[in-house]
Amino acid sequence: MDHAAATTSALPERLLLGSGPSPVPPRVLEALSRPTVGHLDPVFVEVMDETCALLRETFLTRNRATFPLSATGGSGMDALVNNFVAPGDRVVLAVCGLFGERLSDALARAGADVVRVEAEWGRAVPVEALIEATSAGTRALIVVHGETSTGVCQPLDGLADAARERDALLLADCVTSLSGQPLELDAAGIDAAFSGTQKCLNCPPGLAPFTAGERALARLEARTEVPRSWYFDLSLLLGFWMPEDKRAYHHTVPINMIYALREALALVAEEGLETRWERHRRAHEALRSALAVFGLERLAANGEQLNPLLAVRVPEGVDEAALRGRLLNEHGIEIAGGLGPLAGDVWRIGVMGVGAAFEPQARLVEALAAVLGRDPADALAALEADWGAA
Amino acid sequence: MDHAAATTSALPERLLLGSGPSPVPPRVLEALSRPTVGHLDPVFVEVMDETCALLRETFLTRNRATFPLSATGGSGMDALVNNFVAPGDRVVLAVCGLFGERLSDALARAGADVVRVEAEWGRAVPVEALIEATSAGTRALIVVHGETSTGVCQPLDGLADAARERDALLLADCVTSLSGQPLELDAAGIDAAFSGTQKCLNCPPGLAPFTAGERALARLEARTEVPRSWYFDLSLLLGFWMPEDKRAYHHTVPINMIYALREALALVAEEGLETRWERHRRAHEALRSALAVFGLERLAANGEQLNPLLAVRVPEGVDEAALRGRLLNEHGIEIAGGLGPLAGDVWRIGVMGVGAAFEPQARLVEALAAVLGRDPADALAALEADWGAA
Repeated sequence: MDHAAATTSALPERLLLGSGPSPVPPRVLEALSRPTVGHLDPVFVEVMDETCALLRETFLTRNRATFPLSATGGSGMDALVNNFVAPGDRVVLAVCGLFGERLSDALARAGADVVRVEAEWGRAVPVEALIEATSAGTRALIVVHGETSTGVCQPLDGLADAARERDALLLADCVTSLSGQPLELDAAGIDAAFSGTQKCLNCPPGLAPFTAGERALARLEARTEVPRSWYFDLSLLLGFWMPEDKRAYHHTVPINMIYALREALALVAEEGLETRWERHRRAHEALRSALAVFGLERLAANGEQLNPLLAVRVPEGVDEAALRGRLLNEHGIEIAGGLGPLAGDVWRIGVMGVGAAFEPQARLVEALAAVLGRDPADALAALEADWGAA
Repeated sequence: MDHAAATTSALPERLLLGSGPSPVPPRVLEALSRPTVGHLDPVFVEVMDETCALLRETFLTRNRATFPLSATGGSGMDALVNNFVAPGDRVVLAVCGLFGERLSDALARAGADVVRVEAEWGRAVPVEALIEATSAGTRALIVVHGETSTGVCQPLDGLADAARERDALLLADCVTSLSGQPLELDAAGIDAAFSGTQKCLNCPPGLAPFTAGERALARLEARTEVPRSWYFDLSLLLGFWMPEDKRAYHHTVPINMIYALREALALVAEEGLETRWERHRRAHEALRSALAVFGLERLAANGEQLNPLLAVRVPEGVDEAALRGRLLNEHGIEIAGGLGPLAGDVWRIGVMGVGAAFEPQARLVEALAAVLGRDPADALAALEADWGAA
């Protein structure tokens, strides 16, 4: 093979408006490439502490055990299950999309007794059904807060009370919701959760923000069997990230990725969480209005939409994959197709972090008009009107 | 907290001569910060394919299943065990340092019947003892090729034959050996192995190069029970990395880290593996000669040394942690202390990639002389003589 080609092959600038990764701001890329220092170097310990403090602010939690796992968002699922679910545990799981299905898979691998409470893809699971299923003996109630496969946000009302009544843990996948959708971890009574860096945080993929509260840690401590995974053993990870005594080496954490995450979280803090949530809401509504002009209707029902991900139905007779290819190749814009039963039927458009703004959305609307063979004027006007209205 | 402080806190340039991370060349840091593209973008698929091809060249393997896991080196242990060891499997394991102990832990978590064949820390495990322990019914024979806690390289002679005779897999931790110590994966008959990016490859931590051959894949296919970890399920990972049919999304891989790894591997290919191995050997011997002048004797026995990691005994009465602190704070040089039973007794000095060169070693020798209160002249002369001798 030609190594020169391997090292110099140009990477195009893409506008990342798919389901993630999302656009990475220059400040974050710049942080990523700062000099690598050691994982036990006091200057790096400071970076770690700042990252954890910023993560707590972003999750709105006081959980001491808040830090990034050294793997991508999806690994958070393995970590949750590994630490908080033992073989034979009765677990109530909300399933209304691919990421719920994956949790179901991960739980089955862990030997859990999984009680699935389902809704069709495109709807949230009714909280009443989840509460009812959380009967005596339930050890955990697990939901996907932001279902990236459908663009649906799972309501959480009443779930914490139901879980506490049964001495169950409330656990959540917050990969696509963190910093883009209102989420107050402690107020919602979520005992442990994970996220990803490449969605609303606008950081490259590679880390999974993770948090666990006292009830979850007590469950871990009470386990009679050691967790099956060494890499995701929370007790060992905490011995490195937030030691009570001497910091104990577990693995060499992804140092440069942590620089980037810290920078990305600082951008969130500078904007302010509530401002950021509101910006995502406006951006979602504006893009929804614009795409409706082309007949692209949102999949999620009103009140159940996940602001960071707008899934729209592709009109009958449109070859969605071909048009997505043209968006990428002719316009440099990435959007995502459907997964599972929605493959071929929907486009999934990211409204994440810096992507949740007028300019990138206008570029998308113009490009979509071009590949659909439509006039962009009315859609752009709708976009502008919505952005200007606030 | 002060976010401005969080984002602008200066990171010093460190000379990383510890047990890893190792020094990261500018080309690799530059690659790390290239524009993020999507994980399904055709331009990224090309990057993935190049990375895998370069990894095969570096491992000296023709294994199709060769790619980086989306987690740090230590995760390779979980991945090996998750895919190739089932509960109840009899596994022969070489243990002569921390990383052997960790494999023992990971195997116990997986429910394996672990047969430990041990040597004292600082020696390799005799291959005869490993071969003898590989009795009928053994399902896997596992070794740590480069034991980073002691600087010992495990001989592999005869292990592949012994494993094949019993229909056992030969599995290896190659974290610190890959590209720094002679290793020909296919020729050695290793069925599956993992490594890390932050050792001899000079890439930041965050990925675990992984490879598995046909015998290992057949074992995986014959399993009656699905692997316990979803994140490290090799069948799913291969569906994304090297699909036989349509590429199937599993998780969003660490895109920018993969750019960096590709660049780091291109640097290895440009130098040539044999030249690189020889350079590491020379660098190890040169530094060993120089440190001997200060009375710092190598822990590893002749013929068992791991070239990328020189562990030396700290003289009686020396407060090793204090001197390491001074090396870091006054000279900007990181070296590592001892682990487990060797804590306080050894220094572990990395001889990894671009760190395996005269200039960084001379800086270390001068700094060590300063903190030890010694004249550097004789040690520098020894270093120069060894480097000049070739």
